[in-house]
Amino acid sequence: MAIRKSKTPQSPTQRADQKRVDILKSAGKCFRKTGFHQTSMQEICTEVGLGPGAVYRYFTSKDAIIAAMAEDERRQARTLLSEFHDTEDLPQALSAITRAFARRYAAISDAGLMTEIYAEGLRNKRVGAVIKTAETEWVDGLADMLRTAQERGQIDQALDAQAAALLLTAMWDGIVIRQAYTPELPEAMLALFDDMLKRWLASASVSAAPAGGKRTKPAPAPKAAAPVAEPQLDLSPAPVAEKPLTQAEIDLRQMSLI
Amino acid sequence: MAIRKSKTPQSPTQRADQKRVDILKSAGKCFRKTGFHQTSMQEICTEVGLGPGAVYRYFTSKDAIIAAMAEDERRQARTLLSEFHDTEDLPQALSAITRAFARRYAAISDAGLMTEIYAEGLRNKRVGAVIKTAETEWVDGLADMLRTAQERGQIDQALDAQAAALLLTAMWDGIVIRQAYTPELPEAMLALFDDMLKRWLASASVSAAPAGGKRTKPAPAPKAAAPVAEPQLDLSPAPVAEKPLTQAEIDLRQMSLI
Repeated sequence: MAIRKSKTPQSPTQRADQKRVDILKSAGKCFRKTGFHQTSMQEICTEVGLGPGAVYRYFTSKDAIIAAMAEDERRQARTLLSEFHDTEDLPQALSAITRAFARRYAAISDAGLMTEIYAEGLRNKRVGAVIKTAETEWVDGLADMLRTAQERGQIDQALDAQAAALLLTAMWDGIVIRQAYTPELPEAMLALFDDMLKRWLASASVSAAPAGGKRTKPAPAPKAAAPVAEPQLDLSPAPVAEKPLTQAEIDLRQMSLI
Repeated sequence: MAIRKSKTPQSPTQRADQKRVDILKSAGKCFRKTGFHQTSMQEICTEVGLGPGAVYRYFTSKDAIIAAMAEDERRQARTLLSEFHDTEDLPQALSAITRAFARRYAAISDAGLMTEIYAEGLRNKRVGAVIKTAETEWVDGLADMLRTAQERGQIDQALDAQAAALLLTAMWDGIVIRQAYTPELPEAMLALFDDMLKRWLASASVSAAPAGGKRTKPAPAPKAAAPVAEPQLDLSPAPVAEKPLTQAEIDLRQMSLI
C-alpha cells in the first residue's frame, strides 16, 4: 500500500524530504514483514509507489536505506534527549526516556527491526560506521546531561558520566530486546529500573529524592525546543494509546520513520 | 576448513553428538562471516566437510540450526547460573556472570550472531518459540536464585524477584550489544554496573555488604555441580586470555557452540 500523500501545497525541498520519508517508511514496512535481507529494492519501489529511478535518486542501495534508518532513529532519540536537557529531576527524566523507548518499540516488529539494524551494523561496514557515529553523538549528549545534573548537585558527583551514559544506553537497548520477547511484563520491570537508577544516581552526599511523592506526574517537557522541521506524517497503523502519553512520547512517535 | 576430529575412541552416541556439535560450530563460522540469511546449507556442508545427507539427518533446515544455537546458548548460560546457585555473595556472583557474558561475546562476530539470532526470533516463529521457552527457563532460574538470596537475607526482601530477573537479563543483553559497538570501554562500564547492582540489591534492613574487601577474590564455583556430559571441544581459534579467568568464565567458553 502506497503512503498517502499530504494534501497541503509543498515547496520542491519539502517534496524531496517527503519522498525520502515515504521511501524510508515503505522500506520499514517491507523489512518488518520479511526482514532486511529478504526484501528487494523492487519490493520497496512497489510499496512506495515509485519507479526505481526515483528511489535510487535518494538511496543507491538497501544498505543506504538501513543506514539512513539507523541515523534517523538516533537523531530522533537525540531530539528527545534535548527536551530533557535542562531537567531539574534527572531520575524522573530518565524514567520518561525509558518509557518513551518502551512505547516506541512496543510493537514486536519495531523491536525486531531495530535489533536487525544492530546486527547488520556489526557485519556491514557502511551501516556500522553510521551507527557508530550516531551512537557516539548520543552517548556524548547523554554524558553531557549527566554532567549538568552533577554540577547542579542532583546526582552523585563521583560518577563517571561517560561510562554511565554508555551503561544507560546498553540498558535501554536491552530493554527493547527484552520487551519484544516478554511484552506482558513491561511495567513491573520498568518500575524496578526506575528504582534502580534512583538508588544508583543518588549520592550519599546529595540528599536522595524521597521514594514516594513526585513520581506520579511526569516531568513536563519544555515547549521551547520544537523538533526540527520534521514533516507531519500520517502514521498508519497508528499504535493504540492505552495510557495518556507524555509530550516526549508523542514526539518520538511522530518523528518515527520506520 | 573442516573441524578437527577427536582422536579418542567414541561410542556411536558420542559420535552423533560430536557431529551435531561440528555442524553447529561450522554453521556458526559461516553465519558470523556472511550472516544467517546469506549462508546456504551447501556452504555449511562444505565448511563442516559432510554431505547434505549427513547434515540433514541432524538439522532439516537453517532455521533448525539457528534454533539449536539459541537453545544451546541459553542452556550453557543456565549451567553457569547453576554453579552460582548456592553463592553466599549474590552481588559478587552477578558480577562474575556479567563478566562471563562479556568475555563470551567479546568477539564482535559473536555479539553480532547473538543479536542476529534475537532479531530472527522476533520474525521466525520456530526460532522465536525456542528462544521464548529457553528464556523463560533462564529467567525463572535467575528469579529462583534471587529468592534464595532473599530468604538468606542477602538482598532486599521486598524486591520482585521475577521482574528483577527479567531486568537483569535485559541489561545483560544490552551490554552484549553495546560491547560490540564500543569494545574499548567495557571495564569502566562493567564496574559501574556492579556498583549499580550492589546499591539496588542491598536493602535498608539488610546490612549492606562493605564497599571494599571481599571483592578481590571471585566467589569459588562449587565443584559439585559438574556440567552435564558436555563433549570436550577443540576450541579454535582459542581466545587469548589476558587475565586469569574464573571457573565460570572458563566453563562458558568451553561449552560454547557458536
